[in-house]
Formats: sequence, C-alpha cells, structure tokens
Amino acid sequence: MKKAKHVSANRKPKGEGAVLERIERIEDRVGVRRAGVRLGIGDDAAIFRGTKGFDQILTCDWFLEGSHFLRDKHPADAVGWKCLARAVSDIAAMGGAPRCFLLSLALPASDTGIWLDEFLGGLRRAAKRFACVLSGGDTTRRKDILINVTVVGEARTGEAVLRSGARPGDILFVSGRMGEAELGLRQIRKSKCLANRRDPLLRKHLYPEPRLALGRWLSEKRLASAMMDLSDGLSADLPRLCTASGVGVKLEAAKLPMVRVPSRGQMRNFDPLELALHGGDDYELLFTVSSRKQRLIPRSWRGIPITAIGEITEKRGLLLLGKAGQEDPLPNRGWDPFRKSR
Amino acid sequence: MKKAKHVSANRKPKGEGAVLERIERIEDRVGVRRAGVRLGIGDDAAIFRGTKGFDQILTCDWFLEGSHFLRDKHPADAVGWKCLARAVSDIAAMGGAPRCFLLSLALPASDTGIWLDEFLGGLRRAAKRFACVLSGGDTTRRKDILINVTVVGEARTGEAVLRSGARPGDILFVSGRMGEAELGLRQIRKSKCLANRRDPLLRKHLYPEPRLALGRWLSEKRLASAMMDLSDGLSADLPRLCTASGVGVKLEAAKLPMVRVPSRGQMRNFDPLELALHGGDDYELLFTVSSRKQRLIPRSWRGIPITAIGEITEKRGLLLLGKAGQEDPLPNRGWDPFRKSR
Repeated sequence: MKKAKHVSANRKPKGEGAVLERIERIEDRVGVRRAGVRLGIGDDAAIFRGTKGFDQILTCDWFLEGSHFLRDKHPADAVGWKCLARAVSDIAAMGGAPRCFLLSLALPASDTGIWLDEFLGGLRRAAKRFACVLSGGDTTRRKDILINVTVVGEARTGEAVLRSGARPGDILFVSGRMGEAELGLRQIRKSKCLANRRDPLLRKHLYPEPRLALGRWLSEKRLASAMMDLSDGLSADLPRLCTASGVGVKLEAAKLPMVRVPSRGQMRNFDPLELALHGGDDYELLFTVSSRKQRLIPRSWRGIPITAIGEITEKRGLLLLGKAGQEDPLPNRGWDPFRKSR
Repeated sequence: MKKAKHVSANRKPKGEGAVLERIERIEDRVGVRRAGVRLGIGDDAAIFRGTKGFDQILTCDWFLEGSHFLRDKHPADAVGWKCLARAVSDIAAMGGAPRCFLLSLALPASDTGIWLDEFLGGLRRAAKRFACVLSGGDTTRRKDILINVTVVGEARTGEAVLRSGARPGDILFVSGRMGEAELGLRQIRKSKCLANRRDPLLRKHLYPEPRLALGRWLSEKRLASAMMDLSDGLSADLPRLCTASGVGVKLEAAKLPMVRVPSRGQMRNFDPLELALHGGDDYELLFTVSSRKQRLIPRSWRGIPITAIGEITEKRGLLLLGKAGQEDPLPNRGWDPFRKSR
C-alpha cells in the first residue's frame, strides 16, 4: 500500500493520507512478522517470505456495494468481516492456512469517517480470527464502495487439495448446514433498515466462518480427494467440481443438511430444499473422500456437522435422488452474475 | 479464478462461464509453469511455488472506469495493457521481477464481446512483455468496468529496494522524461473520440513501460539506496520517499528531464515544468544513490535517460531551486483521489 503523503510531520494529513493512516492503524505489527511479511504497508509493495517446504496459495475476491452488499442494510462491521472471510474461504477450500492479505478499497469521501472505522473494526476482528495480516493494498475515491481482497495462504508442498481429484465411487461430503446464509439474505432483502448484527438468523449471512481448521485437517490427513467451498450455491458449485474431475454425481435430497426454517411469519413459506440446493454464501466445504477412507470421517468435527450427501459417478451430469425415489437432473440455479437475477 | 460452470460439455456455456473461457484463452500454459505457478485458472485459488532464496513481492492496483480511464476515449487494448503495467511498475520499483498476476474484472454483459476481446489482447501483450503470467482472479457483472490487478513478483532475499533507505548527501535520480503521460492525458481529455493508439504523443499515457530491467539492475548492483515509481507525480510521490527515509530534498528545476511540449496548437500553452512536477502516470523510477556510487550511474542505460535532479538533505521538506537561483518549498499538487481534482 502506498503510504500517506504529508510533506511535514506537523501538518495534519489530508486526503488519501488520512484514509491510509486509519487503515494502517489496524496493521498488526507483531502478527505481520510471524506471518512471514517482511515489509507491510507503506512502500510500493509488500514483501513476503514464503515458508520453506510450503506452496503459496493466491486468491482474490470482489465485494461490491449493490452487487454483494447494500450500504443501507449491511452493517459496515459485517462488510469488513465478510470481505475477508469470503476470500479466506478459498484458502480453506485448498486446505491451506492464510498468511496475509491486500485490501483494495474505493469509497466516497463522506464514508471515510464512521463507516470506514466500523468497516476496519470488522476487518480487524476477521484478520485476527483467521490469523491473516493486512500487508498492503490500494485506496481511491469512488461514488460506490468497492472492495477487492487478495489473500496469500500456504499449504505444505503438494498437499493443497484441488477440485480435480474426485473419482467415481468417492463419497461427497459437506460441512455445516446449507441454505442458512440465503435465509439471512432473504430476510435482509425484505427489511427496510440496517440489519441487526446480533440476529442469530442473520449470522451466517453477515459473519460467515471459513472452515479453515477443517480444511487443513482434511488436507494434512490426506482424506479429501477433491475440495472446494460453497460460495454460489450447491447447484452452481458442484458442477464445477465435477467438470474439473471429469465425473458426475448422484445427490440424495433426503441426506442434505438443510437450514432450519422458522415456522413463523413469511419465512415458513421458504422451501429448505431450495435454499440448500441453490442458496449462496454458505462458505461451507464440499469435498469427496474415497470409499476406503470414508470411515475416517466423523459425523461432526469440532462441533461442525459433516454429512455424506451423495456419490461420485463415472457418468457425467448431476442427478438428484428425490425423497420419493425419483431421479432428476439438478438444474444450475445458483448465483451467476451474468445471468438474470433469481 | 473459479472455473466456468457448465454441466454438460456439449452445451454452450452461458453467463460467467463464457466470460471465464475467454479469459482462460489468454493463459500461457508454458509460461505459467516457468513462472512458478503450479496451478492456474480453474480452482478455488492459484498455487505458486516461490523460488528458493527469493522473497515474494505483493502489490495490487485499482484501474476504474471514470477514475483511471474513460470507456469512450481509451481503447480497450490500452486499458488491458495499462492495468497490468501500472501494477508491475510497483514490482520494478522494488527492484524485483514479476512472476504472475490475478485479474479481478467487473463489466457489463454488453462488454463481454468485442470490448473484452480487445482488453484481453492488450493484457496478453503486456503479460508477455513483462513475463508475468495470468494465474487467476474473479469476474462479476457491473454497470461500470472495474479492474483490480494483483501482481506477485520476486527479488533475491534482502535485495528489494525500499523507500526508506535515502540518506542525507545521496543524489536523487529519475529515469526517462517527466510529464509525458500527463501531456497525453490532457490531449485525450480535450478530444471527443477514441484515442488513436498509434499517436506517439499518447504512447506514454496509453502504453506505459515499467522500468523492470533498470530496477533490477539497480537492486542487483546495490546501487540504489531508496527507490519508488512515479505514479501520482513527482510533487506527490517524492514526499513519500522523503517521509519514509526521514529526510528532505533539494530539487533543481533546471536539471529535470522534462517532456518536450510541441509548439503547435493549444499544447504550446502547457508549462513543461508544471507537467514534470505534478503530472502523474509516468511510471518512471525515482531513486537515490550515495555520492560514493554516483559515478557508477550512466547518463543513459539501455537507451533510457537517467538524470540527477537533486540532493537528499538532512533538513525535512522539499525545496525547489528555481532557474533564477531562488529556493521555494515544492507544493504537493500531484494526484490525490480524495482531494478536489486539479
């Protein structure tokens, strides 16, 4: 991140300098060194020294006002948390550990006060939780709030789990419950005001928890043959894993660990199966395990449910085995920004 | 970069998948391996294996429609070239070599045809020229075209040149000519149509050349005590180097290698000194050399002029020694997105 401009140390910095000073305050100087960052914010670029015997994992993610969050409905604190959480989730999906991140932030001058402080508060908490330190970025002014986060993670050489390793006969697993974030999103869409940060039904949508420890455990024990995270919804993400592996899959609807939809108000009309199949933003792990190793996967790992939901097939395509025993192709109705909204 | 979704290989991919397929076509599969990229586009994240004995250099840069380029005036090909060139310039400024980059691209569905192809054409040429391979990213739909580029470079452990190493008595140098990009920008602002890609007066603005080889030479020979690239203009960037180093500087106006302003038309009214001091986007290198090593710096290096323009002082602040011998503080009138435009 390029450093604030201020000719004299006595003058109060203005403009971009003031924004950068605020951002710099959340830099964790001890953590930075421990993470392998030799040079953080303040120069043309950051310097990272990779750990011996490890590969570096690189990912970046958009988080844009209007597309991924709404300024009048999503608390700035949740925007800060989530923009990092979703990028870190890609590192979890490879079985890696995050090390550092770059923050690209564009925002209106009017939001460089309270909004920025709350945003940085959520970001700092997320950075601490995920052990991922801020080490640079780029800042500019813009009418809409635009965020892009790049995360650098690491995995022991050759241990990262790809999407392409699923083989016919492997069992398909998912962590957590599916559709919870979508339920939260629908509530927020209906509401007219800023979401309540403490509403438990919104937690998964506002403050997702990337499955870092689980992902690392699966990769270190070499249990997962293929893995990815659920970001756009099962019906959008699962075809990607299948295509990468050159396989198909047979899902069992009855086995899906679905969101528990409250039976009150308008929510009772939501179909849990639909939320689970097509809802995005869950950031759960979707992974395959050879039938030989299947017995090594517990039903719950450190409190996170792990559920077998189907089987990888040689025949391409996605089949959904309904509760009545019927088999139907699973249409892709997950999130695609270039298609019309659902 | 998350891979295209298409359930069956026979069906033509639609939406995000089609965009990703176009982007994937510019991936240089041979170059990817040589650059240390073990896994490129198509999974949750990319995998990079750092070179033994090298540090990784990380940088990212916004390139936004309306802020950094205009869709109706800047050719898509130049947008593709420049979004990578300016991020790579940060690697040059550390004395490093670029290895790979991540492309975050948001654009309207209507621009996923010709505009995208031309953009990718410019990006591919830049990637080849800078030996920096595409290895991932993120794509979404947006009304405005938004670009963010993350570049990973490398420098031998401990050899990267920082902004903080300038010492009193060091000589300040600059590469190339200053103000050329600003002259091009002013021409484009005045024009009502798409810029002519072949106009030599626009070349520096449309297709900047990061000073990679020069930066590496200065760092490998340990000639530069401090270094940065000129992106926001000398009067905005030089204070950053001075602040980082805890020093001041005395510049000599008569020594500045200024843009040659044509004596015809409206351009003859432009003041070359003003363009050189405050014009942004030159992507030249600004560096300091101890007086002991000064004689090792040639006046021209592989065809690039190198000019001594001032001296580092113990006394903080920036002084400009005018042609008539007067000394004045140099005001910061370079680019700052959070200040009113010039």
